[in-house]
Amino acid sequence: MKVSEVEREALYKVIFSRRDVRKDFISTPIPDDVIGRILQAGHHAPSVGFMQPWDFILVTDDETKSTIKKGYEAARLESINQFAEDKQADYKRFKLEGIMEAPLGICVTCDRERNGPVVIGRTIKPEMDLYSTVCAIQNMWLAARAENIGLGWVSIIHDDVLREALAIPEHIDIIGYLCLGYVEKFNDKPELEEFGWLAREDINHLIHRGKWSK
Amino acid sequence: MKVSEVEREALYKVIFSRRDVRKDFISTPIPDDVIGRILQAGHHAPSVGFMQPWDFILVTDDETKSTIKKGYEAARLESINQFAEDKQADYKRFKLEGIMEAPLGICVTCDRERNGPVVIGRTIKPEMDLYSTVCAIQNMWLAARAENIGLGWVSIIHDDVLREALAIPEHIDIIGYLCLGYVEKFNDKPELEEFGWLAREDINHLIHRGKWSK
Repeated sequence: MKVSEVEREALYKVIFSRRDVRKDFISTPIPDDVIGRILQAGHHAPSVGFMQPWDFILVTDDETKSTIKKGYEAARLESINQFAEDKQADYKRFKLEGIMEAPLGICVTCDRERNGPVVIGRTIKPEMDLYSTVCAIQNMWLAARAENIGLGWVSIIHDDVLREALAIPEHIDIIGYLCLGYVEKFNDKPELEEFGWLAREDINHLIHRGKWSK
Repeated sequence: MKVSEVEREALYKVIFSRRDVRKDFISTPIPDDVIGRILQAGHHAPSVGFMQPWDFILVTDDETKSTIKKGYEAARLESINQFAEDKQADYKRFKLEGIMEAPLGICVTCDRERNGPVVIGRTIKPEMDLYSTVCAIQNMWLAARAENIGLGWVSIIHDDVLREALAIPEHIDIIGYLCLGYVEKFNDKPELEEFGWLAREDINHLIHRGKWSK
């Protein structure tokens, strides 16, 4: 099946306009069929040995969200002192999650024992199943953007907070907690670029021909 | 910026028709502007703290490819005995890489020290930078598909083979070695599904509402 030039441009539009959304969420609920399409996009990610090690836990109730939000707050406070003093004020200013505002949370996990123990393609690089699950998240991120839904990955939280709040068994790895919702707008640029925290790297400095060359 | 329904359907077409390609590569070289677009797609992946930790090493010469292929062959032989006896014949039958046939190899790496040492969003979950690099690979995979180019991720190879062949410094993590090229055709289904190695999981068994529920 051929992809046309118009379809290709649509993919690039989605890739370049995707943002990590932490604010600007609105409370409009996401219809079930839209959630279904985003999850199907995740489920059609590549997986090592066709292992499909992912699960998706959907979070919509405020009580569970509050528990997760408290976990984020604690982890954020714990992190501040790791930054150089001149960076701490900026760090405090950033909004780094939208746990309460986003109508939907999705915790994405990896069952490393699924279809195992020996998985084609994981014999030498055992982390491949974790990476497969990250591919699922990236598919979901792009699908959400194509549905005009913002998605933010909350990484400032300890796994055990999510494990307890969502009753995730010990043998299941937690990969990410995602916040999803319609948004007032998508920013033109990543916020950390906008705020001058870091600049976009020149891609020519990241490309090596034949061998590593820096 | 709004994504239209037609554009959304184009994204889903790309997501659902993407394959992990190991055979059917043809030798037609990939034009530089196409390679450039695929790399830009990778470079516009989300990254923790806008760290952009990735590098891309482009491999086109046969001598380097041969060294990598030998590394794959050794790792494949090393892996066979891990499979149950009744699975070994199938395992031997599968073609699991297209290193020599694909005109372009791309090794994608992660520099964990870039823009560090303290990175927003990596303070609690240190693996986030590795995961960002995987997001870049998934963007490249979809971009390649939208360019009607096949891509296969070779995971049956030891990092030190790639490190030596491509002169990758010790402090740089190797995430994946990708084979890219135009193809005779894209399969309708993943090969491991087609061959009956594993079936596609029913997505309803992977979705949990509110809490983990199995």
